[in-house]
Amino acid sequence: MGWGDLGVFGEPSKETPNLDQMAAEGMLFLDFYTASPLCSPSRAALLTGRLPVRNGFYTTNGHARNAYTPQDIVGGIPDSELLLPELLKKAGYTNKIIGKWHLGHRPQFHPLRHGFEEWFGSPNCHFGPYDSRERPNIPVYRDWEMVGRYYEDFKIDLKTGEANLTQLYLQEALDFISKQQASQQPFFLYWAIDATHAPVYASKQFLGTSQRGLYGDAVREIDDSIGKILKHLQQLGISENTFVFFTSDNGAALISAPRQGGSNGPFLCGKQTTFEGGMREPAIAWWPGHIPAGGVSHQLGSVMDLFSTSLSLAGVQPPSDRQIDGIDLLPVILQGKLIDRPIFYYRGNELMAVRAGLYKAHYWTWSNSWEEHSKGIDFCPGQSVAGVTTHTQEEHTYLPLLFHLGRDPGEKYPLSFASDEYQRAVEHISGLVQQHKATLVPGQPQLNVCDQAVMNWSPPGCEKLGKCLKAPESDPKKCSWPH
Amino acid sequence: MGWGDLGVFGEPSKETPNLDQMAAEGMLFLDFYTASPLCSPSRAALLTGRLPVRNGFYTTNGHARNAYTPQDIVGGIPDSELLLPELLKKAGYTNKIIGKWHLGHRPQFHPLRHGFEEWFGSPNCHFGPYDSRERPNIPVYRDWEMVGRYYEDFKIDLKTGEANLTQLYLQEALDFISKQQASQQPFFLYWAIDATHAPVYASKQFLGTSQRGLYGDAVREIDDSIGKILKHLQQLGISENTFVFFTSDNGAALISAPRQGGSNGPFLCGKQTTFEGGMREPAIAWWPGHIPAGGVSHQLGSVMDLFSTSLSLAGVQPPSDRQIDGIDLLPVILQGKLIDRPIFYYRGNELMAVRAGLYKAHYWTWSNSWEEHSKGIDFCPGQSVAGVTTHTQEEHTYLPLLFHLGRDPGEKYPLSFASDEYQRAVEHISGLVQQHKATLVPGQPQLNVCDQAVMNWSPPGCEKLGKCLKAPESDPKKCSWPH
Repeated sequence: MGWGDLGVFGEPSKETPNLDQMAAEGMLFLDFYTASPLCSPSRAALLTGRLPVRNGFYTTNGHARNAYTPQDIVGGIPDSELLLPELLKKAGYTNKIIGKWHLGHRPQFHPLRHGFEEWFGSPNCHFGPYDSRERPNIPVYRDWEMVGRYYEDFKIDLKTGEANLTQLYLQEALDFISKQQASQQPFFLYWAIDATHAPVYASKQFLGTSQRGLYGDAVREIDDSIGKILKHLQQLGISENTFVFFTSDNGAALISAPRQGGSNGPFLCGKQTTFEGGMREPAIAWWPGHIPAGGVSHQLGSVMDLFSTSLSLAGVQPPSDRQIDGIDLLPVILQGKLIDRPIFYYRGNELMAVRAGLYKAHYWTWSNSWEEHSKGIDFCPGQSVAGVTTHTQEEHTYLPLLFHLGRDPGEKYPLSFASDEYQRAVEHISGLVQQHKATLVPGQPQLNVCDQAVMNWSPPGCEKLGKCLKAPESDPKKCSWPH
Repeated sequence: MGWGDLGVFGEPSKETPNLDQMAAEGMLFLDFYTASPLCSPSRAALLTGRLPVRNGFYTTNGHARNAYTPQDIVGGIPDSELLLPELLKKAGYTNKIIGKWHLGHRPQFHPLRHGFEEWFGSPNCHFGPYDSRERPNIPVYRDWEMVGRYYEDFKIDLKTGEANLTQLYLQEALDFISKQQASQQPFFLYWAIDATHAPVYASKQFLGTSQRGLYGDAVREIDDSIGKILKHLQQLGISENTFVFFTSDNGAALISAPRQGGSNGPFLCGKQTTFEGGMREPAIAWWPGHIPAGGVSHQLGSVMDLFSTSLSLAGVQPPSDRQIDGIDLLPVILQGKLIDRPIFYYRGNELMAVRAGLYKAHYWTWSNSWEEHSKGIDFCPGQSVAGVTTHTQEEHTYLPLLFHLGRDPGEKYPLSFASDEYQRAVEHISGLVQQHKATLVPGQPQLNVCDQAVMNWSPPGCEKLGKCLKAPESDPKKCSWPH
């Protein structure tokens, strides 16, 4: 989902009454970022509080390439990383993930090995259907075992876009919350729905209800579900005791628009890029009785802050033996403070851009290659800013492109290199970059090697369902990441 | 001001708390349009309820050219047109215009000859300063007489952007409202401020207060002033008896961005074009105790509807001897109804596009000429949609470009000519076009002739101020309208 997909962020059909209401009752973050313009690295960052370049969710197969966890990925979340649920568990929390995991699908990367007690969902995207020979369909898990596969047991009709997965995820969330409330147990629920990810889907009752077509139907179903979850918390009497945060893992995939992709509002480009459209996210904090209603914050925030903020709420110390990139947002949320901190925009192994205050300096620009672009793959449809949305990787290390995001949120007007304003801002940001790079210890890259043999041929539980498939011989290769 | 300039419409710095509050207390229109992508024709349409092509506010000097009322324009609002204040006067209303008139500056076009009883403001834009030889500075009027000139008596500092005009206009509005309330007289106030029009200005107290730079300072001052006007109505106890509508006369002038131009949110291009960015406007209706708070409407609305709606509120019959393009929006505003009606997008003498429901058909596309574009005049900076944002005038009469504005508000993905959806929608819209054209009686074009001699050399009142200048010999010429 993109920044511009919510009514409260200016989506012109204004079809998200529940999220808009959540914002009216809580705090809206206007300058909130993900840690990567692609899903897997973002989610790894969210759960570890660390940049993908530290936690290993990146590739060195090419320069500045986005990588993720398809079925044939060999890597996943390293055991050495400490995930939010692992830490919350120590404080007595029960942790559940509902939906897409995306931190590796091999046994050692299973979410129940990394702090979660419960899982209903899938390790990968719901791509498919596959033929079960070249490629198996993606499994859906309940806890340790698979309970079926997409397109086989969990239907997604690619023609109509119909699938009832969001309803399953909603019911699962409501049940989990009820159970925790009944047993008076604190909980962490990671509700990682994926209806707005291509192939986009919605339940029958939502199909055709949006002005925006199928994508809007999916947004409406998510919005409706969030309304039901918040209402459930209120009805159980635990809303004043439950911190809820809504955000997204990357900008809207404009490459899939309009049927399968959303809106990044006034921002440049989308998913896969380090322009604002790729990384600035809708974000709302909700906690009745604690967060003043109707708040709006310009705090530069990050999904990694949810790690630190959640630990703070639970009274758990963050690990001190490693660099944590997240910050505790509670002073922002509860007292309206503003904390000075930069935002680092990474694409794979490269620091592409840095934001400090209202200034953003691009050290590298790239949308995608001419070769990919000529195939019709366009991360910036209808947009073209000379020297900015470049189709070759352009280095600006010694003379970064500088934008003032207040006057120019769309990154269309680079500041003059000769201006005092440029000199001052770049000097400041370059200091931050130097400091960042000097202390950076990159993690072992997890997204370099792919192997058909590691795909989900025979996940645990497949025997009971008669759904075990035969894996081919192992043949590890460098994964190909064209973007 | 553009659609995307208000917080409630998704402006990322969210600096319009008063307008956002006005929307929260009233009704937000998401699909509201002006009648022309340029100022004078829009204002003529607002006050007559009629398309510029009917009321004469267009040019036939070239095909599909935007024209307005600079100092040397010979034409203006014809006597045969009936303006909103002329009609309201019959119902006992006192009518005042504060700010920019723009319907002609020669004596026969004076607002007090067209239904207004009071005026404080100017006939033209606040361009300048001029040298008083080639061109005089624009006069500022109080009622029948000029009280000074821009840059001479009413300072605008082009370097800092400082001018206190919005404060003057605010005080004038508050005083007028107080006077009307004291005398128990119904009133119509046309508060036509122009701080967001280049050269953009703000008062000292607002300069430097916005994240958005000077343009944002101007928006903040307007927002603050509107908050004060609404509060004044409430304090006088007449808010439940006063209908207030906020809107703009064209999309943000992207050509002047970022310092002098605003945002059209997710829409294509800006002022001067018939893409959504040029003509979709922010719009809010406010009338406590009558309009339910927090309403959002998808009614296709037009500035011309303010003519019909105001007459309806005042119990005055609209003229029956001419075509009125505005509709009465009261059923929409008070009862939440939706009225089926098309929107016609004109540029000068040409019907460029038509919207019906969520479909918009372009019969002509044009941003501006290659010649103008090569001079750096760009109405779509950073945006380029092949075959859509064309630099030659492209006719599509027999195969219009069709967009679905729900799925594609940015007009990036024309529907396939071969689709059933295309056939159905275009057949419907073409019927509307045929009907519209068959009954259209174009007015005498007012914006064809320019003459240095008619400029504001010696407006009434200049003698008292010693500010009369000598006009040159009359030398009428075709006005040049390159866009």
